[in-house]
Amino acid sequence: MAFFYSPDISSPYITLDAEESRHCVKVMRLREGDTLEVVDGCGRLCHCSVVRPDASGCVVAVERCEENYRVRPFRLHLAVAPTKNTARIEWLVEKAVEIGVDEITPIVCDHSERNIQKVERLHKIAVSAMKQSQRAMLPALHDAVDLRSFVGRYAADRATVRMVCYCEGDQRVPLSSVYSAGSDAVVLIGPEGDFSKEEIDMTIAAGFAPITLGDTRLRTETAALYAISALNFMNER
Amino acid sequence: MAFFYSPDISSPYITLDAEESRHCVKVMRLREGDTLEVVDGCGRLCHCSVVRPDASGCVVAVERCEENYRVRPFRLHLAVAPTKNTARIEWLVEKAVEIGVDEITPIVCDHSERNIQKVERLHKIAVSAMKQSQRAMLPALHDAVDLRSFVGRYAADRATVRMVCYCEGDQRVPLSSVYSAGSDAVVLIGPEGDFSKEEIDMTIAAGFAPITLGDTRLRTETAALYAISALNFMNER
Repeated sequence: MAFFYSPDISSPYITLDAEESRHCVKVMRLREGDTLEVVDGCGRLCHCSVVRPDASGCVVAVERCEENYRVRPFRLHLAVAPTKNTARIEWLVEKAVEIGVDEITPIVCDHSERNIQKVERLHKIAVSAMKQSQRAMLPALHDAVDLRSFVGRYAADRATVRMVCYCEGDQRVPLSSVYSAGSDAVVLIGPEGDFSKEEIDMTIAAGFAPITLGDTRLRTETAALYAISALNFMNER
Repeated sequence: MAFFYSPDISSPYITLDAEESRHCVKVMRLREGDTLEVVDGCGRLCHCSVVRPDASGCVVAVERCEENYRVRPFRLHLAVAPTKNTARIEWLVEKAVEIGVDEITPIVCDHSERNIQKVERLHKIAVSAMKQSQRAMLPALHDAVDLRSFVGRYAADRATVRMVCYCEGDQRVPLSSVYSAGSDAVVLIGPEGDFSKEEIDMTIAAGFAPITLGDTRLRTETAALYAISALNFMNER
């Protein structure tokens, strides 16, 4: 079952964009009458059939739509410091979308790299991962923000389980001791040099729980993926 | 704290190999008397000090050793079909070592690629991930084997929780319904085209539990990482 992406599927007919049209007609070789699934990135899945197999603008007819297709039972916002190696963040976005995340925000920290990536490129990776994993919801990829302003936004949000993960410190507790299935979550993952002492104190003072992800030192992108996997796993049972 | 690797640290003095010596002297710029940690990949961590900072053969004195350093509370064997894109398996090995695994075996399945990778290259990646994540245990990287012979080896091993993960089928149950913390585990992850019907039946008949990792379609390496994360997470609490 091939998934295609079209951000606007309001009308009974959809014209896929150039890239999706090429993939549909040239790569998948779909012909008139062939069926395909089109997702809008906002939770809607439409069962469609090809009307005009045009490789530059393939037209498909919408036959039936499902709303909130495979929607996850909780919202997860990952706030992560950019890595020195941009391939690692691109890889993280792909895996995070496959496993399940709703928002990703790059955070600028005292020790973090400044090479913030183009959101457009990460968007392409997210779209492809969404289709590949047969999801209909595209995570929001936000522009980079300063850690302090990000934390400030969540300071009053007691309904969301807010967690800051870092490598050393006695006050840290396991993720499972503060999070329970069904709750929305926001997870902070620090840079290669970890959060500074001041950043950790500030974040905890704002209501974030200090979290340990185990006794080994995980790379930034590995820690993020491990936390995302654990939270989705807790919601699966 | 810098970790170095030396497979043989039986004597009171260790001569690091060329690569580790260069890293120690040229990159980390350690000098005579500086302290460092050396792991043997078998669970032993030695606190050492530099005796002769030679970039081609750095000699260090062993001061104190810890056995079973940060040993995990269960054994995990990942058996995974090779991916078309070898970079994805290399990435998987790096992440699996960071998060925690004891053995990795590439399995040749009806639908799997035949491009088995050189174990030497994966060994290098595993060593670097072990040092980076500050572990002392290096997972065993086995040569590729046929799925049937792999499953045969575990057919009588009722003490290990044996699981086969695949994408579609009503009999699949969540991982948490068959696995409980402290048990040893072996996880089978199929190729891009998934296991064949015959392979699934044969594996289940041999005592492997049919597992679902959720309702989305995860890539081979993502499914493996997710399962490894979930199993380590269950053992952390």
